[in-house]
Amino acid sequence: MAEIPQAQPVSAAKPVQAKSDFLPVRVSGFDSLLEDGALERGAVILLSGGAGTGKTTFCMQSLYNGALRGERVIYLSFEEEPSQIKKHMKKNFKWDFEPLEKTGRAAIVKLDATKVARQVEQLIDKNKGVLEIGMMDIGFPFKPDRVCVDSLSAVAIAFQGQETYRLYVQKLFELLASMNTLSFVISETEQVPKVYSRTGVEEFLADGVIVMYNTMVNNKRQNGLEILKLRSGKHQKAMVPYTITDKGFQFLARAK
Amino acid sequence: MAEIPQAQPVSAAKPVQAKSDFLPVRVSGFDSLLEDGALERGAVILLSGGAGTGKTTFCMQSLYNGALRGERVIYLSFEEEPSQIKKHMKKNFKWDFEPLEKTGRAAIVKLDATKVARQVEQLIDKNKGVLEIGMMDIGFPFKPDRVCVDSLSAVAIAFQGQETYRLYVQKLFELLASMNTLSFVISETEQVPKVYSRTGVEEFLADGVIVMYNTMVNNKRQNGLEILKLRSGKHQKAMVPYTITDKGFQFLARAK
Amino acid sequence: MAEIPQAQPVSAAKPVQAKSDFLPVRVSGFDSLLEDGALERGAVILLSGGAGTGKTTFCMQSLYNGALRGERVIYLSFEEEPSQIKKHMKKNFKWDFEPLEKTGRAAIVKLDATKVARQVEQLIDKNKGVLEIGMMDIGFPFKPDRVCVDSLSAVAIAFQGQETYRLYVQKLFELLASMNTLSFVISETEQVPKVYSRTGVEEFLADGVIVMYNTMVNNKRQNGLEILKLRSGKHQKAMVPYTITDKGFQFLARAK
Amino acid sequence: MAEIPQAQPVSAAKPVQAKSDFLPVRVSGFDSLLEDGALERGAVILLSGGAGTGKTTFCMQSLYNGALRGERVIYLSFEEEPSQIKKHMKKNFKWDFEPLEKTGRAAIVKLDATKVARQVEQLIDKNKGVLEIGMMDIGFPFKPDRVCVDSLSAVAIAFQGQETYRLYVQKLFELLASMNTLSFVISETEQVPKVYSRTGVEEFLADGVIVMYNTMVNNKRQNGLEILKLRSGKHQKAMVPYTITDKGFQFLARAK
Amino acid sequence: MAEIPQAQPVSAAKPVQAKSDFLPVRVSGFDSLLEDGALERGAVILLSGGAGTGKTTFCMQSLYNGALRGERVIYLSFEEEPSQIKKHMKKNFKWDFEPLEKTGRAAIVKLDATKVARQVEQLIDKNKGVLEIGMMDIGFPFKPDRVCVDSLSAVAIAFQGQETYRLYVQKLFELLASMNTLSFVISETEQVPKVYSRTGVEEFLADGVIVMYNTMVNNKRQNGLEILKLRSGKHQKAMVPYTITDKGFQFLARAK
Amino acid sequence: MAEIPQAQPVSAAKPVQAKSDFLPVRVSGFDSLLEDGALERGAVILLSGGAGTGKTTFCMQSLYNGALRGERVIYLSFEEEPSQIKKHMKKNFKWDFEPLEKTGRAAIVKLDATKVARQVEQLIDKNKGVLEIGMMDIGFPFKPDRVCVDSLSAVAIAFQGQETYRLYVQKLFELLASMNTLSFVISETEQVPKVYSRTGVEEFLADGVIVMYNTMVNNKRQNGLEILKLRSGKHQKAMVPYTITDKGFQFLARAK
Repeated sequence: MAEIPQAQPVSAAKPVQAKSDFLPVRVSGFDSLLEDGALERGAVILLSGGAGTGKTTFCMQSLYNGALRGERVIYLSFEEEPSQIKKHMKKNFKWDFEPLEKTGRAAIVKLDATKVARQVEQLIDKNKGVLEIGMMDIGFPFKPDRVCVDSLSAVAIAFQGQETYRLYVQKLFELLASMNTLSFVISETEQVPKVYSRTGVEEFLADGVIVMYNTMVNNKRQNGLEILKLRSGKHQKAMVPYTITDKGFQFLARAK
Repeated sequence: MAEIPQAQPVSAAKPVQAKSDFLPVRVSGFDSLLEDGALERGAVILLSGGAGTGKTTFCMQSLYNGALRGERVIYLSFEEEPSQIKKHMKKNFKWDFEPLEKTGRAAIVKLDATKVARQVEQLIDKNKGVLEIGMMDIGFPFKPDRVCVDSLSAVAIAFQGQETYRLYVQKLFELLASMNTLSFVISETEQVPKVYSRTGVEEFLADGVIVMYNTMVNNKRQNGLEILKLRSGKHQKAMVPYTITDKGFQFLARAK
Repeated sequence: MAEIPQAQPVSAAKPVQAKSDFLPVRVSGFDSLLEDGALERGAVILLSGGAGTGKTTFCMQSLYNGALRGERVIYLSFEEEPSQIKKHMKKNFKWDFEPLEKTGRAAIVKLDATKVARQVEQLIDKNKGVLEIGMMDIGFPFKPDRVCVDSLSAVAIAFQGQETYRLYVQKLFELLASMNTLSFVISETEQVPKVYSRTGVEEFLADGVIVMYNTMVNNKRQNGLEILKLRSGKHQKAMVPYTITDKGFQFLARAK
Repeated sequence: MAEIPQAQPVSAAKPVQAKSDFLPVRVSGFDSLLEDGALERGAVILLSGGAGTGKTTFCMQSLYNGALRGERVIYLSFEEEPSQIKKHMKKNFKWDFEPLEKTGRAAIVKLDATKVARQVEQLIDKNKGVLEIGMMDIGFPFKPDRVCVDSLSAVAIAFQGQETYRLYVQKLFELLASMNTLSFVISETEQVPKVYSRTGVEEFLADGVIVMYNTMVNNKRQNGLEILKLRSGKHQKAMVPYTITDKGFQFLARAK
Repeated sequence: MAEIPQAQPVSAAKPVQAKSDFLPVRVSGFDSLLEDGALERGAVILLSGGAGTGKTTFCMQSLYNGALRGERVIYLSFEEEPSQIKKHMKKNFKWDFEPLEKTGRAAIVKLDATKVARQVEQLIDKNKGVLEIGMMDIGFPFKPDRVCVDSLSAVAIAFQGQETYRLYVQKLFELLASMNTLSFVISETEQVPKVYSRTGVEEFLADGVIVMYNTMVNNKRQNGLEILKLRSGKHQKAMVPYTITDKGFQFLARAK
Repeated sequence: MAEIPQAQPVSAAKPVQAKSDFLPVRVSGFDSLLEDGALERGAVILLSGGAGTGKTTFCMQSLYNGALRGERVIYLSFEEEPSQIKKHMKKNFKWDFEPLEKTGRAAIVKLDATKVARQVEQLIDKNKGVLEIGMMDIGFPFKPDRVCVDSLSAVAIAFQGQETYRLYVQKLFELLASMNTLSFVISETEQVPKVYSRTGVEEFLADGVIVMYNTMVNNKRQNGLEILKLRSGKHQKAMVPYTITDKGFQFLARAK
């Protein structure tokens, strides 16, 4: 499994080919786990794992490397402040989103989950059970190539009823798919999850499910990632160990 | 266990014998697990398994091979868009549903689970607890020989109450049975399921239950399929390992 | 454990002795597990097991062999259509209920669980919490010697409240007992059950509990039957392995 | 552990000493598990175990042997018909309650759990949360020395709310204690219970808790009895194996 | 671990030193498990364990030995009658509370949990969510040095809502603390508890948590006690085996 | 892992450098588990563990050592009385908060969880779902460098609905972050937790999660601490054993 070079300086990056159907994920050797070497545009990928497994890091690494190559990327936060996220990414991994934001290739956006939930509930009430949401409603400043929503769990707990949340998830996924973007949506689970989301609905609406495990072996934590489901093509069916270094995700090489 | 030839070009396929009571499933060697070598027309078969076990692939392989031999087949989606499904089936397995749709032998139909749930709830309200549904209500353009409903789980979560959902499932099963079609209905479960559906009602209303397991052994996933229940006849009582290749399902041969 | 001859042609069967207090079950060697070699008339026996364990087959074998010997038997279905059941029994085991129905010795009746539940709820409402049901209310065309109700699970899910269901079960059991019939009532459980019914009430209202297990050993299913409780007399306290052949249930012989 | 002679013919029994504070249980060697060799009058003993563990048999053996020695005993059934119970006890163990009933030493009474629950709920409603019940309210024809209530589980499910049931249990226990009777109250649990009653309240209101286990070892059931709690004195703290023969309970002897 | 002499005759006991901040527990060698050799006045100690673990015995031993040394002690029962408790303590352990009650050093008080719950609920209703309770409200005839409340579980089930119960527990703990008494409050749990109270709130409001385990080893029960939490000082962090003899609790000696 | 000197007398402490972005935790060798050797100002750290694991001690040690070096610290109690906490800290660890309070460097504040919950609920009601809270609302006498909230669990149970509690937690975390303080918020869990808070929301709103385990090995308790999640930087991924001595937390040294 050859290592894909990560996080090159901006000048070294080439724009991606427009209208390609597939986008490499560009997170360490992740793409080599996929037969296509990339994920499909329009796909919504559920990223599930416990606290501290690196879900945000995985996404940020993908967004950063995408933007470096000329894509437009959006990180939609329902939890941490954009200034904090950028500070941490720069400090921990030297991923500097400032120049990318200035050149319009990246946007890091914060939405208040409670406000979103209240608005959605009012819309559903007003329209008698029907919900339509547009790009503006989710705070996107432009049509992105690559998106991360962090996290659906924060959104789920803000809703008053499971039913309205499910309707919101369905419409959000449809919207993301309609923009032809590659989307990662994050779900926080137990450390060794057997269900991959709060309601169980996200995992079968999603076009793919990636699970991050955090197992305790001899009082040490070991991380592993598994591609559980992928509609667009074949993938390795195994748990791949990883660590997080100052270059982000590092997978242990495995013969494919 | 002899391999049944799969996915022959359309021209090579012969029409099935009309009025036969049984239809071969035509998914790799699956039929050899059945004493009858086929499943009964009018039977509703519950297909249960976790995310990524290949439930959709199993059904599509059966529908495609049926249509190739002259049957009329319908895939009723409550999740993925028909265009996406067709694209993925063609890309991953070379199963091209376009010519089959043009010649009227296949239909891939999408219904909105939320809308269906709301309509059913209104019907039940209006008719004081009684529900009657017809072929048109479930979006069937013709009376099919073979059907896949993907998935009941998506329908279940769209209903506001378990009771109305159960009534819907009961009536849906009766309708499918009345059309003399062989029906697969999909239920998404945990990776190693002990219950086979959301409400537990599907599994004893169904005429058969097929379970797909996704077990983690030495950090590798292994898939196995089991026929748990079948009213129409005897079957192998064991978990049969399988992989999914670019030809679809492949069972490991076992002496019967 | 001597094998009791099964399923003799009708002409070979002798009428049972009238007014006997006990009826042999006549399912392979099952009766040899009982000190009395038979079950008591008036007893309601709960038959619990997972999907595909053969609960319906067990009952049908008992009913068929009883009817062959001159008894009157009723199979009350809340799930499968009578025509289907008869077709499957004839195909799989050569048990032909048609001549038995014609001579008035067998009846296979279907009731709609939802309708029954609604009627019972209305009766309870009308009579302020009191419920009386008669033989006609449960669709019995005659007073039977042997009965199977398949399944209580289907009835349980049709009720809107647990309380009304429990009252119904209590009254149903009383009615069956009052007719001096030997009754099997089926409950669908998990494959290796620890509770034997949906509400837990059936198992202590019943005069006996028979449990059917479906355990996975080395990826093969193994079936075992256990008599867990029996008010009328002593019985073997062990799990007895069985298979289902084209002659129905076959127990592995064990010294008593 | 010496065997206490069981079930002598009536003529051979001597009247118990009046006003004794303790009553031997008289179930095989059970009394030898107790430092006092007997249980205290006024004590309410919870008898918990799964279906088929012999809870009713244990009680009946105690009642029968008590009545034989001149006590007055009552069996209060919320489940089985008195005629059936008597028939089974006579058939299975030769315990004939008829002569005991005729001489006024035994009464086997049936109450309808649903009716009792409705009456109690009305009383509580009428008296604004206060409940008083007397000997007549629970159908006792006389003040007994020994009582069995079979089962609290049947009563529990008949109540509409846990709160009213708890109040009823509390008052029932107080009433039984006030009559200076030795009372066994039965609770049906799982086969290897970890909680001993439906609501968890019975086990700490009771003066003693006896648990009956039904464990599966090598596909054979093994029964064991444990005295878990006893306010009146010390007792063996171990699981004592037992079988049920045609003489009732038989404990395997253990050095005390 | 030296044995502290237990249960001396009244005449041999010396009055405790007034105004001391700490009180020895005086239950066999328990105090040697504590760095301070005693528990703090004003502390509320939760005593959690399954049925039959000896929670009441532990408290009674502490109260009795305290009273013998001149303290004033109160046992507040929500379950057993005072006359019964005294009878059992005298019979089983020769702890005679009668002379202590006559000399005003001990009081054994019974409160009806249901009545207390109703009163508290009315007070909260009347005062719009605010609750104040005084010494009289909990039936204390005098200000005690040492108290046992047996049991909180009985109180918890008498309340109609968890919220009002929690408020009551909070106020009860504050009241007990304000009297500078050493208080044991009993909670009935499973035999090998992982949570230590019904609502989970008692264990972090308490100043200490003592857990009593009842584990089954080779079909024999083994008892062990653990001090899980203690705000006032250090303690042994291990499970200490114990038995209950006719002298009450006996810990197996362990080097500290 | 070098030991950081703990709990020097006040005179020996030097004021911390103002405006530093990171603050050492100063709890035994804890800081050596962090790549930065400190935690970030503005971070909210969830401290989760069972009763008796030392959560309060950990925080108090950090606050005390911070105040000794010139920081201003606040301990916000929702459980124990300030006078008790101070007494116990002085007695058990010789941490004397009195002089620190007098010089304005420490404040130990008690709030009534029930009152806070009622106020928050009223505010939310009044402002139609919107909640704003300020420094005064949480009883802070000054803007602190270091804070401990003990415990969120006590607050959680005081709320009538999960939704309002979640909103409160979110706003509390935002407020703490806005003050540029290093905040520890305590959550009481099971002894070997798999979820780290009552609602599951705290753990993904927090900037870090520290878990304290209390495992039973050979009947002895062993404590271990794990940093599960930390947004600001890398940390050791293992369970580090610790004991609590009269100097507070002591970690067993491990090569980093």
